[in-house]
Amino acid sequence: MAELIGNLLVAQSGGPTAVINASVAGVITEAGRHDYIENIYGGLNGILGILNEDLIDLNDEKAKSIDGLKHTPAAALGTCRYKIDFKKKPEKAAQDMDRLFEVFKAHNIRYFFYAGGNDSQDTAHKIHEEAVKRGYEMRVNGVPKTIDNDLPHTDHCPGYGSVVKYNCATTMEIGLDVGAMATDDGSCCIIEVMGRAAGWIAAGTVLAKQGNPSLPPHIILLPEIALDEEAFLNKVKATVAAEKYCIVVVGEGLKNAAGEEIGADKSRLDAFGHPVLSGAADALAVIVQGKLNLKTRTVKLGYAQRAAAHFASQTDVDEAFACGAAAVRAAVDGKSGYMPKIVRLSSSPYQWTIELHPLSEVANVEHFIPRDWISEDGMMPNEKFVDYAAPLIVGEVKVPTVNGLPAYVRLEKSRVDKVLSPRA
Amino acid sequence: MAELIGNLLVAQSGGPTAVINASVAGVITEAGRHDYIENIYGGLNGILGILNEDLIDLNDEKAKSIDGLKHTPAAALGTCRYKIDFKKKPEKAAQDMDRLFEVFKAHNIRYFFYAGGNDSQDTAHKIHEEAVKRGYEMRVNGVPKTIDNDLPHTDHCPGYGSVVKYNCATTMEIGLDVGAMATDDGSCCIIEVMGRAAGWIAAGTVLAKQGNPSLPPHIILLPEIALDEEAFLNKVKATVAAEKYCIVVVGEGLKNAAGEEIGADKSRLDAFGHPVLSGAADALAVIVQGKLNLKTRTVKLGYAQRAAAHFASQTDVDEAFACGAAAVRAAVDGKSGYMPKIVRLSSSPYQWTIELHPLSEVANVEHFIPRDWISEDGMMPNEKFVDYAAPLIVGEVKVPTVNGLPAYVRLEKSRVDKVLSPRA
Repeated sequence: MAELIGNLLVAQSGGPTAVINASVAGVITEAGRHDYIENIYGGLNGILGILNEDLIDLNDEKAKSIDGLKHTPAAALGTCRYKIDFKKKPEKAAQDMDRLFEVFKAHNIRYFFYAGGNDSQDTAHKIHEEAVKRGYEMRVNGVPKTIDNDLPHTDHCPGYGSVVKYNCATTMEIGLDVGAMATDDGSCCIIEVMGRAAGWIAAGTVLAKQGNPSLPPHIILLPEIALDEEAFLNKVKATVAAEKYCIVVVGEGLKNAAGEEIGADKSRLDAFGHPVLSGAADALAVIVQGKLNLKTRTVKLGYAQRAAAHFASQTDVDEAFACGAAAVRAAVDGKSGYMPKIVRLSSSPYQWTIELHPLSEVANVEHFIPRDWISEDGMMPNEKFVDYAAPLIVGEVKVPTVNGLPAYVRLEKSRVDKVLSPRA
Repeated sequence: MAELIGNLLVAQSGGPTAVINASVAGVITEAGRHDYIENIYGGLNGILGILNEDLIDLNDEKAKSIDGLKHTPAAALGTCRYKIDFKKKPEKAAQDMDRLFEVFKAHNIRYFFYAGGNDSQDTAHKIHEEAVKRGYEMRVNGVPKTIDNDLPHTDHCPGYGSVVKYNCATTMEIGLDVGAMATDDGSCCIIEVMGRAAGWIAAGTVLAKQGNPSLPPHIILLPEIALDEEAFLNKVKATVAAEKYCIVVVGEGLKNAAGEEIGADKSRLDAFGHPVLSGAADALAVIVQGKLNLKTRTVKLGYAQRAAAHFASQTDVDEAFACGAAAVRAAVDGKSGYMPKIVRLSSSPYQWTIELHPLSEVANVEHFIPRDWISEDGMMPNEKFVDYAAPLIVGEVKVPTVNGLPAYVRLEKSRVDKVLSPRA
């Protein structure tokens, strides 16, 4: 294998997480070890910024900033949801691909790493294929990232452990609060968490129970399993009878028996005709309060959960960093078109390693919770799930603070001079 | 002053906080230093549990559990919202008071401490007055607590610093997330925080800006200042034009010009006729998305914010503990009918001490943000507020963890034998 001399470009895509910057730190740190990787560039706002030739020089950043990325949430390079869509917009996609390679050539990019979820792995795969087709010598690998944990082949995704850790702590805290307030009248609190169509994040809050059936959450509603309203209300009633309160966690994408998301209230439209999204928790609260006359409050953590680096999982940070570094090592070893994946060697003690998986098998495949990891009534993950998820939240990241607040890093973002004419 | 020999009773009331248990730890720890305080009892669920003679023996708890209360959120003894209301229900109130003193006498309670907000200080005051009237020798002091920070006379309330610290970290994290995702389309995120009619909690998130005008939150809407929809939308637009995104923090009790809470959607009722509370953030999102056609997401932290001991303020914990201890010291010194208050000696460096304030002047007075601590447009607290709030969030509580989650304490709650017949 020939040594490939040139510049490196790393970019981030899709919804941020608490640890996607740790993956970038892994890329930069590993790249610094290899002499034939010359400049280390970052693309701003993913593919979108690269199309606009918006590149920054990561070698101009302070070493302590790069290190600080390991505890800084969100996407320090910016992200996008831009998709190069050969199916729906073939002409536009072809133009975009031409432009990308113009930028790569103009800046002698020979190593490209794209951290993201499903769509981003698809983009990385297409760029790898294009490079081969065009005969442009380049090594392109994906870096897995998604709080939703729905990428296939990898045991789990960097970003997932941290959102679960934070959501569990929050569920414990809300449980203590609501439990302390509960008197004979009873009360219910419904916590809405992210995860779109996948229930991995909602399911993860089972760890807050710490194996104790009477502790919250008492009910976990997963998007994979259609809401059985009667069974749900019966379980709320039984829980309140036993514990005086009931904590419910619901995945935002929960559907009714007709397959409609219960959080989308299509009966109300705003001035532009968008449906008013009440959210799954609020929709459930209307049902519980309305049918059981039980005081019900909701919590919608929203973006707070995926950015909560102040209580991130050290295991997750380590794995995110390792995935970034592995993508670079693979490229240096001549491999292109791969995604590092986390392979679990043992759950107890937790041991893992990184292997490579071809991007061709990753893109656009979704990964859901096996049905036999969930209780028969569908409202609680079982021991199989607990064994899977428990190791992922272990370890606390030490986040430095200034004036009582986390000292998160903001990059200087020294721009690389543009050499091309602006994109058409 | 005669030494008063007898038992101590401590109870908690109202909405829990991250540090109200630290106040109980302060009461118990200080009580342990005084020989003529014999047994140390806790009343379960505040006044409600005392009426039911539901007492626990806190001397039966492990020493490490008492110490663990300093980092455990919510109310370890349980709380209630029960009010002894001589104005609206004089007969019931008189019955309750008779019953309370039956319980006090039956268990030789000579020291009573009630941790809570406005209503609880009122209850403590009434019990103090009743004891004097009845000639029952007893010392009764309040312990201040409320995340809302609306108690008068004290510089601030235990519980406030921690909710501000957590909300600021969360606002910073959401800001990094939304900022990373922002492209030319722009986006808006509205974070709803607690505080009822007072804007102290919402205002506190100004500290997340760290003095940088371009950092989030860009707009803070306070319940004290009626929403000027046009001015608000103009500021959102200007912020998105400058920063590509806009983070808004709104206090849950925000009102419109007509004085109605904007979060209460009275047009929709559930089956029992309760109005469907959409919440202030969701109501604003409909306005922003509808009028500006700007992608808008909401976060409703709800109970999560007041129970977030995993990122509590050490300053707050220290002050909460000191208030509990001071209430006991005052009682031992013969004082009854007082609430310890925090007196600020200096903001920079932050120095404080505890003094006593008569409960007669505390009860049922609310304390709002001075108008001249808020910008002219009403949408941002100014330097005066920042100087006030900044010291309160300093210091991180070291919370031990087990399996990656906070190790919060649950008391054994060894019951004190009942000696009275059940309450009528």
